[in-house]
Amino acid sequence: MDAPATGTGARAVEADAAAQERYLRLRADFDNLRRRAAREREAGQLEGRRAALTPLLPVLDTLERALQAGSTDPAFCEGVAATHRLFIQALRDAGAEPIESVGRPFDPNVHEAVAMVPADGGRPGTVAREVRRGWRLGDTLLRPAQVVVVAPREPVDPWR
Amino acid sequence: MDAPATGTGARAVEADAAAQERYLRLRADFDNLRRRAAREREAGQLEGRRAALTPLLPVLDTLERALQAGSTDPAFCEGVAATHRLFIQALRDAGAEPIESVGRPFDPNVHEAVAMVPADGGRPGTVAREVRRGWRLGDTLLRPAQVVVVAPREPVDPWR
Repeated sequence: MDAPATGTGARAVEADAAAQERYLRLRADFDNLRRRAAREREAGQLEGRRAALTPLLPVLDTLERALQAGSTDPAFCEGVAATHRLFIQALRDAGAEPIESVGRPFDPNVHEAVAMVPADGGRPGTVAREVRRGWRLGDTLLRPAQVVVVAPREPVDPWR
Repeated sequence: MDAPATGTGARAVEADAAAQERYLRLRADFDNLRRRAAREREAGQLEGRRAALTPLLPVLDTLERALQAGSTDPAFCEGVAATHRLFIQALRDAGAEPIESVGRPFDPNVHEAVAMVPADGGRPGTVAREVRRGWRLGDTLLRPAQVVVVAPREPVDPWR
């Protein structure tokens, strides 16, 4: 009766090892999932803010264009200007921050070049003018700034 | 050699059953956690939208007050009115919905009574006028509407 018993024992040991490995794998997956679940809520909050704020930025643009066009009614214009200040503050309260662009070096991570001006318009490679303001949300980009860039100077070729 | 072999076999079967149970328990915990993780993200998205939209509602209120006050500059006024329409649409795009109030029965879940008018101002217990618009976000309330309510008629006391 020894041989079958030993065979059964060996199979039992193998089965134990397989069950133990299966358990440990699931344990590791569980710990990973727990870490991910903690980050899920934060990731969701950022997504939610992004989804809410993105459609509101063109509304602010339109309000700014109206203000730039100006008005012959100073009282009404002042009311709208006050709304504009509140709007910017509300976006900041929601976690959004405008991107500083004019005079800064062109940065492809946050700037989108829509035109160039000759080098005598400012320091080459810097932003001459902002066409549409860019916005950040925390460490992420809500939308890039659309900017006009000062062209780099023609390189001086010493062999010519 | 039979008795010890049988004893080992019985212990092995018990150990197998315990390992199997431990595995199944962890599997159930894992599935629960996975469902919770999915809900966490959704809950976070809703929180994020709420946090972004809430500070923007008073901005819309201010814009509406400016428009109600009116202007002597029709072109500027039309620009601002267009911005107002865009604003409402952007809030809808972000998942917010205005609450219908005027003429509806007063509902303490979405209405906040700020004043009463006599019963001859409309059907008793209904909303006569909206002072501040209320907004929903999905199934939740973003902010209640502030309303003026038509007072209930004095009850007729047959014993008096």
